[in-house]
Order: sequence, then structure tokens, then C-alpha cells
Amino acid sequence: MSSICAVLAKEETLQEDQRKPTFDFKSYMLQKANSVNKALDAAVSLKEPAKIHESMRYSLLAGGKRVRPVLCLAACDLVGGSESMALPAACAVEMIHTMSLMHDDLPCMDNDDLRRGKPTNHIVFGEDVAVLAGDALLSFAFEHVAVSTIHVSPLRIVRAIGELAKAIGAEGLVAGQVVDICSEGLSEVGLEQLEFIHVHKTAKLLEGAVVLGAILGGGTDEEVEKLRKYAISIGLLFQVVDDILDVTKSSQELGKTAGKDLVADKVTYPRLMGIEKSREFAERLLNEAKDMLAGFNQEKAAPLIALANYIAYRQN
Amino acid sequence: MSSICAVLAKEETLQEDQRKPTFDFKSYMLQKANSVNKALDAAVSLKEPAKIHESMRYSLLAGGKRVRPVLCLAACDLVGGSESMALPAACAVEMIHTMSLMHDDLPCMDNDDLRRGKPTNHIVFGEDVAVLAGDALLSFAFEHVAVSTIHVSPLRIVRAIGELAKAIGAEGLVAGQVVDICSEGLSEVGLEQLEFIHVHKTAKLLEGAVVLGAILGGGTDEEVEKLRKYAISIGLLFQVVDDILDVTKSSQELGKTAGKDLVADKVTYPRLMGIEKSREFAERLLNEAKDMLAGFNQEKAAPLIALANYIAYRQN
Repeated sequence: MSSICAVLAKEETLQEDQRKPTFDFKSYMLQKANSVNKALDAAVSLKEPAKIHESMRYSLLAGGKRVRPVLCLAACDLVGGSESMALPAACAVEMIHTMSLMHDDLPCMDNDDLRRGKPTNHIVFGEDVAVLAGDALLSFAFEHVAVSTIHVSPLRIVRAIGELAKAIGAEGLVAGQVVDICSEGLSEVGLEQLEFIHVHKTAKLLEGAVVLGAILGGGTDEEVEKLRKYAISIGLLFQVVDDILDVTKSSQELGKTAGKDLVADKVTYPRLMGIEKSREFAERLLNEAKDMLAGFNQEKAAPLIALANYIAYRQN
Repeated sequence: MSSICAVLAKEETLQEDQRKPTFDFKSYMLQKANSVNKALDAAVSLKEPAKIHESMRYSLLAGGKRVRPVLCLAACDLVGGSESMALPAACAVEMIHTMSLMHDDLPCMDNDDLRRGKPTNHIVFGEDVAVLAGDALLSFAFEHVAVSTIHVSPLRIVRAIGELAKAIGAEGLVAGQVVDICSEGLSEVGLEQLEFIHVHKTAKLLEGAVVLGAILGGGTDEEVEKLRKYAISIGLLFQVVDDILDVTKSSQELGKTAGKDLVADKVTYPRLMGIEKSREFAERLLNEAKDMLAGFNQEKAAPLIALANYIAYRQN
């Protein structure tokens, strides 16, 4: 974690965590991301029709930090579940995240041609295939949870599928997207609407990741709801930091086009409240997230605490 | 059913069925389609954000014959299930069908501006919203099955969700779409590839509809597999008849742009084997479908027999 410099004004929290010798966040992330990458590679193999599978794999295996699947695995572990219980769900969440980026990048949406430092899916495979590959990833995410989840009761699998779907649809991710599109160029967008956009566009899927892990790992209703609140806070935090990075970092540092929000005349936290207030807000969200983990075994909660810090202090 | 003139060469089968006084197909379809329409209207209500829900409802409630949901309900009934067991799944199948049409109609795909006699979704709501509304319908279909299915064991619900997802993705609907797109304008497309396209593009979702009904209604594995074969036959039949209608009917009669396949230089059954041979093939598929229903109580199988006839003899 030593390479992560502070985006937030104060680094104390991070420094404190770094001093704890019991938990090596960097190794943890690498090991979990490695499990996820192997599982994704196996789940979406290169079969016929080749073109659609190539397109799906191109974006799905393009790297990325795998924050969402790791959150899912960490939540499962925290409530006492094993990795195998949540691995299909963790992959599913990453499939959904990938498909949302693919559709987001389309010319009729954000019209982005660079993502994670590579040409976007529609640039390589064409718009038609990019739309279809997104659809295929979306449905395969559900198939994967339904077919490949083991050692979990069907009742919990059904509940998890309901939560995952809710995170995506017209009351989740898509709701955030559509309100975001409708608010571009509007001058009267306020904090409430901005928060609606971010809660839905970003926090809902992070919430889904954490809640799925907690449900599939056998968590009690109380545990699931605490982890849901943790996830909503880090979800909003994620977007606030994203907004800050967009105005403070270059395209090269981000691996995607920087300053796009300004060009698109999008409402962002820095634009509404300034950089300093945005940083204070991010810090408050970070603390709220950590408060939700207070009731759990702190050693087992270390990955989720570190993930919250990581989201707060990441540089791209 | 008296208004349905024969697309196929021989009308005997239809005439025979019409003489049976025990089953009124027209009333059955109207009653079931009415249940489905009410359920769809309630499932996707007009809430915030309004634009995305309006877009979803615009295409979902645009009429349509509701063949897929009725197949789902009829299969559920045939294996001894009640309507409430399969109604959410029936709605889900129609949501998937609708989203596939919405994405299919996009400028980057078929670029169609007329569907069921009305402007297509992206013409009314814009391409960005049409993409997102399709995504929302796709995920909501799974949410609806997971959350709203009652009186069915979670094990069967999980199985049904796996089947539904498989019908859509890169080994289902999307596979058919992508191979179809890749084969446009190619001169060497053969019968095998054409059948691949149609089995995936059309038959997979009809198969999903029937198999979901059979699973949720409590069918044995043997019953589910027989009904799966019935569905694959009528699925292919559906597309063969569609191809025939495209070259024999006007846009006004079809309620969509006619002759599009020829203009797009798409490979079709009439183009590959001529109209007469296409009609013979359709008749063979119709008989194969009916053979699969032979082992069931014939009175209870009447709706599925009539639905096969309807698909064969429909005029649009």
C-alpha cells in the first residue's frame, strides 16, 4: 500500500493502518484478484461463436483492480463463509460492472474510446457486438450465480439473485445512468440529485457485491444490513474520489480520458462544493463506513477496513 | 381462429383442430394474454426515474401476441402447476423478448424505425435510453422471477433462473444475433448456419418460456425434456414462418417493415430452399412438435397443440 499517496487531505487513517503488522492489504488484494481473474477466465472461455466470446473476454479480462469481487469475497469471509460460496457471485458482479462500462462507452452514451488504457470494446469489435456482448455478460452473470454457486442453500441463492438484479435495473445502476444523462448540461442540478446519481450509478453495485457476499456466506439479517450500510458509504466515497481524480489527474495517470466530466458539462462534487469540501465529505463517508464494521471481529474485518481506505486513497 | 388463413400449403391440421368443440383457442389466448398484460403493467409501474420506466413500458406494453408468456403458462398448467407459479416467469420471458427487440432495432444493429406499427423505442426516447431500458428490462426479468415467484421451491426457482439466463446469453439469443450479423451479405451461408441462427435467435427463448413453465409447475425431468423438444421445434417453426411472411406479406399486414431480410441481404429459408420447400419444412416441424405432446393428457395439452398450430398458421 506504500505506493498509494493520499487523495484526501489527511493521511492519518491510512498511516495508522499501515502500521498494523497483522494484515498485508497488498498481498490480500493480489491473491484475491488472482482467484477472481482465474475464475473469470474459466467462466467465460473462448468458445463458439468466437466473436462474441472474444468481445466479452476483451473487456472482462482487461485488468482492473477487481474491487467489487474482492468486496464480495471479503464480506462472505467476514460472516463466516468460505471463498467457494461467493466466488461465482464475485465474478458475476465483475461481469455486471464490465457490461455497464461497455454500454456506457458506446457512441450513443459517453462515446469514450479509451478504457483502462486500451481502446474501448466498440472500437475493437463494433457497436453492434459491444451491445450484444454487454447483454450476454449481463445474463451470464445471473446464469453463473444460479448454476455455479455451491454449498449454499437455494433460498439464499434466490435472495442473492434478487439483490444483484435490483442493483442493476431501473432502481439501481440504470437509474443512476439515466438521471446522469438527463442532468448533463443542466445548471440547476443540486447536491440531492448528484447524490442520487452516484448512489445509483456506483454505490448500488458495490452494495450488491457486499450484500451478495454476506448473504451467500450465511450472514444474519443484522449482519447483512450493517454491511449494506458500509457498502453504500464506500460506494458514494468511490464516486466522490472519482470526481476528485477526474479534475486533479492526467489521462495517463488514470488510464482513461481525464477531465471528461468537465468537457461533458457534468455535475460533480468538486464543481458543486469545491475540492476541499469534497475531500472533507469523502473523509466523513470513510468514517461512516468503518463505524458499520465496529461490531464485527476486527481481525476478520481488516480486509473491508483496508478496502475502504483503498477506495478513499486510490490514485486512479 | 377463423381469421387465420394458412401460410402453410395444407390447412387440414388446422381445420381438424377447429372442429374440436372442447377447446376455444381464441378465448384462451385472450384470457391468458390479458393476465400477462395486467401482470406486466403492475410489475413495471410508472415510477421515478420516469424516463426509464416510460421507455420500458412503451415497448413492453405495446401489444404483441404474448406467445412466449402464454407458452410458459400453458406448460406450467400441463405438468399440474397453477398460474401463479409461472406468471412472474411468463412476464420475465416477455421482458427479455422486448429488450431483445429494443436492442435489435438500434441504429447500430438492424436500424429499424417501426415495430408493431409504432416508432421504435430509440426513435421515441433516444438511443442512450433505449440501450439502458433494455438493460433494465433484462435485469428486472431476473429480479421478478427471484422476488415474485410464489408456491415454488427455491431449488426450482434457481433452476429456472439458470435456464432463462442460458436462453439469452452467448449460447442463446445473443449467439444467434451475432452469427446473424456476421453472416449478412455473405453468399456462402448454408442451411446449417441458418438453422444455428434461428435456433439461437428465436427457438432458445421459446424453449426458455416452455421449460421455465414446466420446471416451476413441478414437472418431472422427463416432462421438462419432452416439452423442451416441443419448444425447440416450434421455435424453429416460428422463424421459418417469419421468413416466409417477410417475402409474402406487406409492411401494413405485418405491422413492421416487410422485405427487410431481402434488402439487408440476409439469408432466409425461402432464399435457400424456395417458398414451397420452406412450407414443407415448417409442416415437418409442426408435426415433430405435436409428437412430443403425445404422452401427455390430450385435453390438458390442447393449448400447446393449438399454440403450435397458431405459430404455423399466423399471418404476422
